[in-house]
Amino acid sequence: MSYQKLDQLNQTLHALEHAMSLLGADEATNMPTGGGEGRATALSALSAMHHEKASAPIIAEWIDAAQNSDLNPEQQYALAEFKRLYEQRTCLPADFVGAKTKSAMASEQLWRQLRPTGDWKAFAPALGDVVKFAREEARMRSQNTGLKPYDAMIDQYDPGNKMADIDPVFAELKTFLKSFVPQALELQKQRLAHRPLRPLNGPFPVEKQRALGLAAMKQMGFDFNHGRLDTSHHPFCGGVPTDVRMTTRYRTDTFLPGLMGILHETGHAQYEQGLPRKDAHWPHNKARGMGMHESQSLFVEMQIVRSPMFWKWAMPRVDEHLGEHVFKGWKIEDVLAHVNLIERGFIRVDADEVTYPLHVILRYEMEQDLIEGKMEVSHIPEAWNAKMEEYLGLSTLDNPTDGPMQDVHWPAGLFGYFPSYTLGALMAAQQWASLVRHIPAAPQQIEQGNFSEINEWRSKNVWQKGSRFSTAQMMEQATGEPLNPAYFIAHLKNRYAS
Amino acid sequence: MSYQKLDQLNQTLHALEHAMSLLGADEATNMPTGGGEGRATALSALSAMHHEKASAPIIAEWIDAAQNSDLNPEQQYALAEFKRLYEQRTCLPADFVGAKTKSAMASEQLWRQLRPTGDWKAFAPALGDVVKFAREEARMRSQNTGLKPYDAMIDQYDPGNKMADIDPVFAELKTFLKSFVPQALELQKQRLAHRPLRPLNGPFPVEKQRALGLAAMKQMGFDFNHGRLDTSHHPFCGGVPTDVRMTTRYRTDTFLPGLMGILHETGHAQYEQGLPRKDAHWPHNKARGMGMHESQSLFVEMQIVRSPMFWKWAMPRVDEHLGEHVFKGWKIEDVLAHVNLIERGFIRVDADEVTYPLHVILRYEMEQDLIEGKMEVSHIPEAWNAKMEEYLGLSTLDNPTDGPMQDVHWPAGLFGYFPSYTLGALMAAQQWASLVRHIPAAPQQIEQGNFSEINEWRSKNVWQKGSRFSTAQMMEQATGEPLNPAYFIAHLKNRYAS
Repeated sequence: MSYQKLDQLNQTLHALEHAMSLLGADEATNMPTGGGEGRATALSALSAMHHEKASAPIIAEWIDAAQNSDLNPEQQYALAEFKRLYEQRTCLPADFVGAKTKSAMASEQLWRQLRPTGDWKAFAPALGDVVKFAREEARMRSQNTGLKPYDAMIDQYDPGNKMADIDPVFAELKTFLKSFVPQALELQKQRLAHRPLRPLNGPFPVEKQRALGLAAMKQMGFDFNHGRLDTSHHPFCGGVPTDVRMTTRYRTDTFLPGLMGILHETGHAQYEQGLPRKDAHWPHNKARGMGMHESQSLFVEMQIVRSPMFWKWAMPRVDEHLGEHVFKGWKIEDVLAHVNLIERGFIRVDADEVTYPLHVILRYEMEQDLIEGKMEVSHIPEAWNAKMEEYLGLSTLDNPTDGPMQDVHWPAGLFGYFPSYTLGALMAAQQWASLVRHIPAAPQQIEQGNFSEINEWRSKNVWQKGSRFSTAQMMEQATGEPLNPAYFIAHLKNRYAS
Repeated sequence: MSYQKLDQLNQTLHALEHAMSLLGADEATNMPTGGGEGRATALSALSAMHHEKASAPIIAEWIDAAQNSDLNPEQQYALAEFKRLYEQRTCLPADFVGAKTKSAMASEQLWRQLRPTGDWKAFAPALGDVVKFAREEARMRSQNTGLKPYDAMIDQYDPGNKMADIDPVFAELKTFLKSFVPQALELQKQRLAHRPLRPLNGPFPVEKQRALGLAAMKQMGFDFNHGRLDTSHHPFCGGVPTDVRMTTRYRTDTFLPGLMGILHETGHAQYEQGLPRKDAHWPHNKARGMGMHESQSLFVEMQIVRSPMFWKWAMPRVDEHLGEHVFKGWKIEDVLAHVNLIERGFIRVDADEVTYPLHVILRYEMEQDLIEGKMEVSHIPEAWNAKMEEYLGLSTLDNPTDGPMQDVHWPAGLFGYFPSYTLGALMAAQQWASLVRHIPAAPQQIEQGNFSEINEWRSKNVWQKGSRFSTAQMMEQATGEPLNPAYFIAHLKNRYAS
């Protein structure tokens, strides 16, 4: 009876989530500008309705009663994950959430306004306020979960991930990358001196790029009966598992970023489309977390698509869709030189897979200090600069726009999110290594554009598990060991220094 | 205080309506087929949520308390319209609504299945069930409103419209049309014998048709900052006033139906975009009803667009967008012969403006008899046939698919809706006549593609009034007299027999 009440509640929450997700996708792809204010008001009302329904005190009683009733194993998973989310939603007092949201909204708005000029001084007080709320939030979440404060923040995005596990992994990775980045750059320089980067033979009409992208998505296993591809300012994967809305953006001077965007989002989309369909309104049948989600997009983008095996299949497809002149006289190395080009840069979202983790580790270390009260907002620019100098040899002191003001996460109050990006990259490399042990023919299958056995492995080990296990448990089940940076390190060595 | 509670409630309802409306538009324009089941489940849950919130018993107390508080005139309009809707929503017991909805869903589903083969015998019992519920609904709505049973049904779609007013109007119109249709057809035959219909010089690429349509929408006053044009199987106008989603469909052998669809929906869209923006979440700032809405689409389509004055402006636009070869050697009469072609037909939705009202009057008369218990479902085929023979000289006895099984309304339990279509046509003619009395230059303005003064009149007399007055009151305020079929009759005579 109580379980039925929870089932009914989850159906209602699922419908609201469906609406918010599709309205969000529509906003980015179709909505005329003037519709923005009305859409924001509607979304905020739907979100308030969702919060009110999802955190009603009576639910605690239903959970208790359901726990004491006779549940089958599937229902036990369902209840456990629902309970976890309920506690996450309700462990902060409503007036605290209200004040915190207000602070974050003001800060994010100010950030949008000040970022272009990099006016850190004017922005810092607002961020200081946000950090104060984040510390208090972490303290309360810590009390509720028994986790350390920053772990309790991470737990919202990647259940089960903890500093105790991440710290040694990131430490090893940082040590490796600090010496590997210069080495890889030097090797790239030598390669390009020997065989220079060939200019791309554009322009590339958007419609042709789109057709190529659709063909690649289809081959990869995207289900067009349950999803579609559109265009937006920033690529994303949204919608719902039965109706996935993914986007890319196109340039006409090169087709590579558009295609890479499509294939990255295809990885996310496959996860969503591959989730269990039965009882899809229960949270244990939704995606595990941000790290696991990123592992799926990076599995496709980094493990498969930016590899020589993929381009054996893809080069003739480019000929077909964009014309034979594009790759005329090109060898596979020429394509790889483009898609695996690395460089030191200021901006995380523009970074390649070699330098990207250093951007994340920088933020991870600073977030720890900020949440634990070891660093104040006033020290951010200096600390940021010191780490950028140390990790990538770049100074940001006179350029906060491309330094600590580049990301929306902190202004929006999102602490604990950043590690997921790099954990996803590590997980993808480890998944690939495990997959190849089980399917030795996988590389040859990719050369032939045959992804079915690979997708079966991903489905069984990731997609179909929904949120029944923690991120760490899923990795152990799928690969036979805990998260191990060795696979990612081997992947980088193999791609950039062999 | 109570008024504030109602204000808050209306914001919530408005957000849910926003979501349902946009999700509906997305479903028709963008959704992949496989998303249908999940979308239907989500929409039904949102709709249940809306109903639950909108019909909560506590609201009656808020309304009472607000009525006894100090309200300004604007708030009085707001409360009156909200109260009217609340009573409409709550006057049926919940278990009756449940049973009625189930009956209508089963009947509509059966209809979709049986319509292609026209299996009336298999369909009739389901429709009989729907009619039983409709009679009971009409009885209960009648008790609640003090209106006659069928009037209480009409009142849901067009507040204030009553048989006592409609009967004489439709009687006059029917008498006129029964003799006018043969006369107009004979005149058309003579005209076409003298000057045959020129074949359209296609094909017409969709992209060019779309560009022409967009140009015409823009000229007519559609606000692209608050709306957009898409393609769907059936043209519609949906979305919300700040983000209107309208559609058309294109054929490549002729551009006229696509363009007419666009301009018809533009009329609807202008009404939505022109509604009061302040307190848009209150129902007195939403569109008045189906008849008034149809008056706005038909005002554009029938009064403006299918006229010689419009084509003076439009012919050069067609040259521009589709090429000069399209109308090479054509006179304006040649275009008008196409856009004002009339013929007797079985299907209401395909009918021209001369024969259309007879399709509606037939349904209106039969609905009266069905709701009042003067006719049983078993007699529908015979009665339909007799009226079709009498009004249009066509027999449907052996063809229920194109007879009583053609419309979704009855299978879906919608009784009282049909008259709105023709009332809208009559209102549009009367509005136009009144407008020309106030703006004698309107026809010349249309020839120049100048719609600003015309739109100002429509805004002041229709759009900006929201739902502050009944349909009948709005017509009196806008035109100085009650609904009078003479204007529509004069319009038909002028267009088809002058």
